[in-house]
Amino acid sequence: MKNYITQDPWCIIEDGFHHQYNEISESVMSLGNGRFGQRGNFEEKFTGRTLQGNYVAGVYYPDKTRVGWWKNGYPEYFAKVLNAANWIGIDIDIEYESLDLNQCEVRNFRRVLNMQEGYLERSFVAVLKSGKELQVNSKRFCSIVDDEAGAIRYAIKPLNFDAKITLTPYLDGAIRNRDANYDETFWDEVRKETGYGEAFIELRTRKTGFHVATGMCVEIEQDGVKVDYQSQPIKHEKYVANRMTLDCRQGQETVIYKYAVNLSSLNYDPDTITKEAHYSLQRISRKGFDKMLFEQMQAWADKWKTNDIIIDGDVAAQQGIRFNIFQLNQTYTGEDERLNIGPKGFTGEKYGGSTYWDTEAYCLPFYLSTADQKVAKNLLVYRFKQLGKAVENAKKLGFRAGAALYPMVTMNGEESHNEWEITFEEIHRNGAIAYAIYDYVRYTGDKQYLVDYGLEVLIAISRFWSQRVNWSQAKQQYVMLGVTGPNEYENNVNNNWYTSYIAAWTLRYTIQAVEIVKSLDAEKYAELIDRIHFREEKEMATVRQIIDKIYLPQDDERGIFLQQEGFLDKDLMPVSDIPKGQRPINQHWSWDRILRSCFIKQADVLQGLYFFEDEFDTDTIQRNFAFYEPMTVHESSLSPCVHSILASRLGMRDKAYEMYLRTARLDLDDYNNDTEDGCHITSMAGTWLAVVKGFGGLRVENDQLVLNPYCPDQWQSLAFKIRFRGALLQITTTQSDVTVQNFSAQPVLLQVHGEETLLKGQSKHTVKTSVDA
Amino acid sequence: MKNYITQDPWCIIEDGFHHQYNEISESVMSLGNGRFGQRGNFEEKFTGRTLQGNYVAGVYYPDKTRVGWWKNGYPEYFAKVLNAANWIGIDIDIEYESLDLNQCEVRNFRRVLNMQEGYLERSFVAVLKSGKELQVNSKRFCSIVDDEAGAIRYAIKPLNFDAKITLTPYLDGAIRNRDANYDETFWDEVRKETGYGEAFIELRTRKTGFHVATGMCVEIEQDGVKVDYQSQPIKHEKYVANRMTLDCRQGQETVIYKYAVNLSSLNYDPDTITKEAHYSLQRISRKGFDKMLFEQMQAWADKWKTNDIIIDGDVAAQQGIRFNIFQLNQTYTGEDERLNIGPKGFTGEKYGGSTYWDTEAYCLPFYLSTADQKVAKNLLVYRFKQLGKAVENAKKLGFRAGAALYPMVTMNGEESHNEWEITFEEIHRNGAIAYAIYDYVRYTGDKQYLVDYGLEVLIAISRFWSQRVNWSQAKQQYVMLGVTGPNEYENNVNNNWYTSYIAAWTLRYTIQAVEIVKSLDAEKYAELIDRIHFREEKEMATVRQIIDKIYLPQDDERGIFLQQEGFLDKDLMPVSDIPKGQRPINQHWSWDRILRSCFIKQADVLQGLYFFEDEFDTDTIQRNFAFYEPMTVHESSLSPCVHSILASRLGMRDKAYEMYLRTARLDLDDYNNDTEDGCHITSMAGTWLAVVKGFGGLRVENDQLVLNPYCPDQWQSLAFKIRFRGALLQITTTQSDVTVQNFSAQPVLLQVHGEETLLKGQSKHTVKTSVDA
Repeated sequence: MKNYITQDPWCIIEDGFHHQYNEISESVMSLGNGRFGQRGNFEEKFTGRTLQGNYVAGVYYPDKTRVGWWKNGYPEYFAKVLNAANWIGIDIDIEYESLDLNQCEVRNFRRVLNMQEGYLERSFVAVLKSGKELQVNSKRFCSIVDDEAGAIRYAIKPLNFDAKITLTPYLDGAIRNRDANYDETFWDEVRKETGYGEAFIELRTRKTGFHVATGMCVEIEQDGVKVDYQSQPIKHEKYVANRMTLDCRQGQETVIYKYAVNLSSLNYDPDTITKEAHYSLQRISRKGFDKMLFEQMQAWADKWKTNDIIIDGDVAAQQGIRFNIFQLNQTYTGEDERLNIGPKGFTGEKYGGSTYWDTEAYCLPFYLSTADQKVAKNLLVYRFKQLGKAVENAKKLGFRAGAALYPMVTMNGEESHNEWEITFEEIHRNGAIAYAIYDYVRYTGDKQYLVDYGLEVLIAISRFWSQRVNWSQAKQQYVMLGVTGPNEYENNVNNNWYTSYIAAWTLRYTIQAVEIVKSLDAEKYAELIDRIHFREEKEMATVRQIIDKIYLPQDDERGIFLQQEGFLDKDLMPVSDIPKGQRPINQHWSWDRILRSCFIKQADVLQGLYFFEDEFDTDTIQRNFAFYEPMTVHESSLSPCVHSILASRLGMRDKAYEMYLRTARLDLDDYNNDTEDGCHITSMAGTWLAVVKGFGGLRVENDQLVLNPYCPDQWQSLAFKIRFRGALLQITTTQSDVTVQNFSAQPVLLQVHGEETLLKGQSKHTVKTSVDA
Repeated sequence: MKNYITQDPWCIIEDGFHHQYNEISESVMSLGNGRFGQRGNFEEKFTGRTLQGNYVAGVYYPDKTRVGWWKNGYPEYFAKVLNAANWIGIDIDIEYESLDLNQCEVRNFRRVLNMQEGYLERSFVAVLKSGKELQVNSKRFCSIVDDEAGAIRYAIKPLNFDAKITLTPYLDGAIRNRDANYDETFWDEVRKETGYGEAFIELRTRKTGFHVATGMCVEIEQDGVKVDYQSQPIKHEKYVANRMTLDCRQGQETVIYKYAVNLSSLNYDPDTITKEAHYSLQRISRKGFDKMLFEQMQAWADKWKTNDIIIDGDVAAQQGIRFNIFQLNQTYTGEDERLNIGPKGFTGEKYGGSTYWDTEAYCLPFYLSTADQKVAKNLLVYRFKQLGKAVENAKKLGFRAGAALYPMVTMNGEESHNEWEITFEEIHRNGAIAYAIYDYVRYTGDKQYLVDYGLEVLIAISRFWSQRVNWSQAKQQYVMLGVTGPNEYENNVNNNWYTSYIAAWTLRYTIQAVEIVKSLDAEKYAELIDRIHFREEKEMATVRQIIDKIYLPQDDERGIFLQQEGFLDKDLMPVSDIPKGQRPINQHWSWDRILRSCFIKQADVLQGLYFFEDEFDTDTIQRNFAFYEPMTVHESSLSPCVHSILASRLGMRDKAYEMYLRTARLDLDDYNNDTEDGCHITSMAGTWLAVVKGFGGLRVENDQLVLNPYCPDQWQSLAFKIRFRGALLQITTTQSDVTVQNFSAQPVLLQVHGEETLLKGQSKHTVKTSVDA
């Protein structure tokens, strides 16, 4: 846990240069626009600790996996997002000295991520070994308006000298992924070009053959006036630059504007991609830095209009939640159904930028409530488009007849993960993908989605579940053997309650979906079942039998569901009994010890009670929460949010707040000592959930918005904005009342604390709440 | 399955050169003497398929392991036996042509492993591209008398030409292990020397710093007369040779004798090891090839005198069993307590030459019955000496107070394996190590072993078991969670019957051993318990409680033990239901499918019933056999022998024979398509067990030898030799009677088919048996 980030409601501020935390700062100061992302690296040369990172969405490399003991069915490749050409670099040489913050004294350093307006700013005075003092101010952003473009304003001012200063803006494609398994280079050079103040480099990924063209152009101003300069082109292997030497006087500001674009062959013909980069660069440089920045600020203002959460009375919390919202918006914009959300977004390499069940289980509700409906829809369509590969994947594991098993980790629909207990057994991911369809339809009311895409996915997943259970003669019930639940601190267990429950639920929902699609569009239904050889009567009969006879372990005495069969044989004890210095247990205990302990990595039974809370009474949820919560170590950042939401639901406000705090500033405070690898993007959605579904009590029931908000004692007020079926609402809750304001023309029927109200367009409604819970 | 090896009672014969099977032939034709071993490679250059292999016992390298997903407690290194300098090489050049069986026509090729006398012989005519025909006869052996020495007689005869022929005997240390994880070189050169007709190379292993000095000297004969020759020394990186060119006339035989030694720093001071190699080489070359070979033949004759099994009426079976006995004797001689038995012996690199539980569970009885008592004892002392590391290992996994967990795979006592479900959970190995102590004491009557070594190991293992179980509130019994039994087609199960049973048995035997040691040597006992802080009363009280309350899953209805809790939830079906083309399942099914199937890799409950058969009645064994045998796929070569022994015991002679056949000629017929990697040395001991404990019905009960032999219907007679407490016996069984012959002076009290007899020295005793079983 670290405390060097200055608290501020709208900015992430590093005051004074923290060498030792530089990689952490680089992670949290990352910029992105859904199309590409750039870590908070320095423009000028830096020989200290740094993880240079520019990641272009959807461009991946099948890195050879590292495996100890091979198992049939393992993938040979782990697709990972590539560290692409460095587009921000500007080397500064003052006579015989290079500007390098690792080699000089740094004064008045300040690095600020402005989340309100979407840019990164940095200022400092460098005192070189020669005694020369140079003032530097830089500002840059990844444009969300021109989403392939970035722009930099880099200003230098000699404070105590006159000198010739050489500026070398460059593009460098000779970069590697730090997480490469065999330290291979992933890029080949295709072409490079330089012109007056401009340069281009086109690289192609090995094996996958993606092209990425990166271009830059440069303008120089002195005393606020554009200057002509002599530009010397430089080319090396995978490197292009322009070198220019300027006379700089003491006190005179020299500004270099560097415009860059990153185009990928996902969107352009490889034959003409470098030419397209030319055009694109011309267009944005003509627009100019100030105009681009103004558009950026406007676009972010629009986002905040529908996204913001305002916490009154707690700057740290305010900063934390805005940071989460900001990063989620930088990571995924929903413009492109081929893209998804990596656990680290564009802020680092870990987890290879691949898609996990995090998307469906944690991120989807954020985008459902804060963005246009198509954004969430595109997250679902992403899986729909990968259905073929999920069927392939299931076939590799011995399943038949169109059964689908979605991968645990993927970039392109193929499985990327190689641990049998996860790859083959953590199959509950399939349930989350089905649940996301339900969640989307419930929130949006868009039943047509089932007709167009959803039912086909549901049937394929249901076919998987139907084959994955087997009839136990001993129990006279269907059992599901050899699975790993969300609690990965148990492997290869029998009858994991969560997995079996979500399997049976998928089957139930598929039956409903069949009926919905039949009634909405009988013709399309007929087409579909013909195409996928769905024998409705027979398959649905099997499904009904399984629903009826699925074994769900429980303990009648305690009135709880059992995480898995045999859970009560463990030596049960609370987390507080773990000896000091042995947490997190995954860093101190051998795997077998973790497995046979009762300790839970992340919500498992409780994850199920969260998803399906309307199928259980409050007492049941309460008993299970009381049983499992004390044994949960939350060693996944995705765990506390679920506990927080349930605690809010159960009126356990202190517990809800405690759980909220565990991830609210996870990256800003480097809580887990790993922010240097990148930010925990998907768990940010979890924190948002803890606020909106937890404190805000947001639900959708029977097409109606339901709100049961309260303001944590620690805050004066909490306000959040959501979109719901065309309306834009703000829910403000203080210690004494709740106000719902409708900013849209669209009337909304909703329930606030059990009271049904029709909230007209452009109106607000206030409900008094008692101060006591 | 292949059939190219010619059947013969004493020899392994390849008639005609089988290029495509060359690596298989190299494996089965391996020579060894317990100190080093050499695959059946060619002396002359060969550019075809070959795995060159010379392995020096106890010299290992800690190869960096390859791991996908790291877990706490994993070892970073996998110790593996090294492929050492090639000592057999003799290049033959005839004017401008090299002799290379991959580049010429080969006529009358014959490669013969003579098991009776312990040498490898090869003869062929090579027709070179120039039309020259060269007759070659070679013979070589690894001396079991001079156990660091090998000798080669290599004779060439031009059949249709006169020519200058260049002979280049060499030592080549520029070799790699084929199984290296990162293709590293494991050796550094320390020094090399050449002299007249001699050469030395001393290599040192990286990281571990073992020195191995390899030396050679050469003599030449023409027309049966030693000739002087000009010798040109050659040195390259890690390579030394002598080149000599001789005039060879048509029809004239030129013979090169190459003597070689391999000395390791396990036995010599590295400072003088090359000098020692000089002395050693002088000594053996003075002795000469013929004398050495004569001594070799005598030594093998002595071995066969106490080892042989004679099968009358089935040459294939005769060849198979002798091959097994021969290879087991080549692999381990029991001279050195620092050595053990790798699953491939000196015949290949797979499994790194490391020690597995195979030694205790399968190999020990072979050496107990066929060799001096000290041989088996040294196998036990090997583990005793590694007790400290086993305690360390347990500590890494969170165990305390002197608890020991022996490694699954090891060279030096440290764990070498990195699969959590095996490394951390296949803990039954600890039980086998305890059982081996019991087995040894039962067979030899050497209770002093318990005093000197055994009890300390037993207490440490019992401490492990005591901590590894936990009290289940739900069951009100002790449970053992998260283990993998011998059936590795189940992972991380709860209450594996075999593991829990052998754990409880260890505790019981430890109680007995405490009493034995106390009564034999109270003083030593006092010393021991003081040294290891054994609080007898308290620890034994815990042990008694666990013995009393251990949970052993069973099914009362079927009257069987359950392999693990929940076994009956599986979809039970016989192996015969596996669709055609899907076996072995480990090559066709994904791991999860294998795990949740009912199919068993190797005897698990049945392994326990074999070990502890005197604790169960025949009906119980029968019921369990009938239940588990049909579900067993025997995808471990260690499985069929246990089934065969139990089937013999149950009078199921056809089944016993069927199971015997599955491994009897495993390597000779390349049954599993993997003999090219090396021979299945440890499973050879299993086949021997199937004969001697199965067909022979050998047991030791209450210090008495018990025999219930029968001769399989397919054979006329079966005779095997065993040692028992100083006596040497031969048991011969035909379809009608059993004869026990005592070759020693020592009288033996024994039971044959239930009839007690005192067999005097140098006498025999015959018992009639009915022809029907």
